[in-house]
Amino acid sequence: MILEAVFLQVKQGMEDEYEETFREASKIISSMAGYVTHGLQRCLEVEGKYLLLVTWERLEDHTVGFRESTEYQEWKKLLHHYYDPFPIVEHFKKVRL
Amino acid sequence: MILEAVFLQVKQGMEDEYEETFREASKIISSMAGYVTHGLQRCLEVEGKYLLLVTWERLEDHTVGFRESTEYQEWKKLLHHYYDPFPIVEHFKKVRL
Repeated sequence: MILEAVFLQVKQGMEDEYEETFREASKIISSMAGYVTHGLQRCLEVEGKYLLLVTWERLEDHTVGFRESTEYQEWKKLLHHYYDPFPIVEHFKKVRL
Repeated sequence: MILEAVFLQVKQGMEDEYEETFREASKIISSMAGYVTHGLQRCLEVEGKYLLLVTWERLEDHTVGFRESTEYQEWKKLLHHYYDPFPIVEHFKKVRL
């Protein structure tokens, strides 16, 4: 299992509209092969800052399966114009504790 | 429920020792009032980068209960010297999707 994690900065004053749009976009990502779960978290200290966490079965389910899909084009169209700066997505593997 | 989230940059070459020490330190945070769960994730793209996620019942369980405790002094002593730069911790609230 791989965790996709990214801090997102949404343009000022667009937070409510973004969250509403994200709800719509959630249906897209949830339908993808290898998708496990996702959640969006809103920062308490920094206005417009969010943390997106998506769990995938394998890295390629995100980097290839999702990003090279037609569904990703729709996801992008819905969400990318809210972000400034454009976010850098990274992937993480759980450390055994 | 509040999510504490922070990207951590561990000094070069100290990753294995850090993970071992973090396992030890996990006992400290897990014993605190208001602690729900925590996990440490290692970045696939950036060497020495980690994501720490801790769920607390209330914001104050972390910012007051933990940070003003004697247990936090021990946590600090075990872990803080591994980080460069010193991380900025933020808190997040789940967006209803």
